[in-house]
Amino acid sequence: MDINSYNYKTYIPVRFGDLNAFGYVNNDVYLTYFEIAHTGYWRQILNWKSKTHGLIMGKAEIEFLKPIQLDDEVFAYVKTSRVGNCSFDVEYVLTIKTPSGEQICTTGKTSCIFFDFEAKKPNPIPEAFREKMVAFEALVS
Amino acid sequence: MDINSYNYKTYIPVRFGDLNAFGYVNNDVYLTYFEIAHTGYWRQILNWKSKTHGLIMGKAEIEFLKPIQLDDEVFAYVKTSRVGNCSFDVEYVLTIKTPSGEQICTTGKTSCIFFDFEAKKPNPIPEAFREKMVAFEALVS
Amino acid sequence: MDINSYNYKTYIPVRFGDLNAFGYVNNDVYLTYFEIAHTGYWRQILNWKSKTHGLIMGKAEIEFLKPIQLDDEVFAYVKTSRVGNCSFDVEYVLTIKTPSGEQICTTGKTSCIFFDFEAKKPNPIPEAFREKMVAFEALVS
Amino acid sequence: MDINSYNYKTYIPVRFGDLNAFGYVNNDVYLTYFEIAHTGYWRQILNWKSKTHGLIMGKAEIEFLKPIQLDDEVFAYVKTSRVGNCSFDVEYVLTIKTPSGEQICTTGKTSCIFFDFEAKKPNPIPEAFREKMVAFEALVS
Repeated sequence: MDINSYNYKTYIPVRFGDLNAFGYVNNDVYLTYFEIAHTGYWRQILNWKSKTHGLIMGKAEIEFLKPIQLDDEVFAYVKTSRVGNCSFDVEYVLTIKTPSGEQICTTGKTSCIFFDFEAKKPNPIPEAFREKMVAFEALVS
Repeated sequence: MDINSYNYKTYIPVRFGDLNAFGYVNNDVYLTYFEIAHTGYWRQILNWKSKTHGLIMGKAEIEFLKPIQLDDEVFAYVKTSRVGNCSFDVEYVLTIKTPSGEQICTTGKTSCIFFDFEAKKPNPIPEAFREKMVAFEALVS
Repeated sequence: MDINSYNYKTYIPVRFGDLNAFGYVNNDVYLTYFEIAHTGYWRQILNWKSKTHGLIMGKAEIEFLKPIQLDDEVFAYVKTSRVGNCSFDVEYVLTIKTPSGEQICTTGKTSCIFFDFEAKKPNPIPEAFREKMVAFEALVS
Repeated sequence: MDINSYNYKTYIPVRFGDLNAFGYVNNDVYLTYFEIAHTGYWRQILNWKSKTHGLIMGKAEIEFLKPIQLDDEVFAYVKTSRVGNCSFDVEYVLTIKTPSGEQICTTGKTSCIFFDFEAKKPNPIPEAFREKMVAFEALVS
């Protein structure tokens, strides 16, 4: 996992309610963390507003490497790793701050699709968004 | 607390993710349980669909008497205790099934307001709803 | 997706709070639905109590095919598709009831690991559990 | 509501998943916001660790004045308004930043009880905690 290939990083505040009965962040909260990270990434890079452009998730994969606890300082790294016609892939790394540096605790990937909720079908990625995504990530479109 | 004054009762399925690090249902989940109960009550009594009539909560009170655990069988009792012009009050009792009968673990009350999200102001309770609420609870309107 | 290869099915009650601002069940709730289904499956097949045996998730994959709405009747199918030494795989299908039968809306897979939270290392699957899992699924162990 | 009587203020990051189908933060999330605020308050004032001292909530009241949306900048004010033998009261104000200053959107109050989960009974507030609470709030104990 090469953290250096990520251009966006954000802090993830852990909520007490995120914990499960074992005292660890529950598995179903990791997609929430990815969502927080992705929302922040989009706000910064695309000046995205959730209301104007519908997005759906097509697929999600999460690899849980180390559990997260309440007092952990958690960071999320986000990058767009593929930009298609209507869809794009996003990759995530979560780290925990330790005395010897950040330790990777989770990796993940989601495939997202621009979606027209009225017509119930995929929409092409708006051109302005595509350009910014490609430019920010220096992707070959 | 007179359970007999309640005409609606429903089962509340406890989710593992509802638990906190102490192994008990977290405090912020109780309003969720009230909401589940109230949604079921309204579906039955008013044939309510969430999309057509906006509702907001004006006030909520919860009294926590006994904690809830994952394996508990939880029931919610709901009644409308007051019907006003635009607003109404709902009261709740949560119980846990025990070998010696149901034990009250939580009581609560919410004040709800019919709300026009476009105009951003309260709406009178639709007459058909008011009639059904009053009839079901045998309230003096 | 062969629903007939699944021996366990359960009803998933959708909560109003599961919805996002688009009116659909939010992506991060699907793992919650898998967890509800898996907990029910284990209770029935293994007589499992969450407190005695720690389990962690190693990996999760979700494929989102059709969105879920509040009034949908959702069912979850669960099967154990692999039983290893310390770990096992679970597969999930979520369906929505329609007039023409159940429609698949989500598929998923999780890899779970028996875990000793004190020693912070994997534990072999208890023999009694393994036997029941294999017998229920008629797996070749 | 006198904001000036509050000595602690913290930022509350709104999550997309906090929203309901109307696009507003769902009612059951407000207690979560109070919890985030209270946890931060205690970390700062009492150097509190969740694991060593059990706390339960006895009562909660929430007054919803203005709804919260995803892009709102939300702040929470917290103060301890009463310190008893085993219990204490906490008051909360949530505000939203607007061009003309912060606007109050929610007020609330919770009664908390130090609790011994083993013995299942209230515990006196540890003396060191009481002193810090009283000193920080300049309360008459």
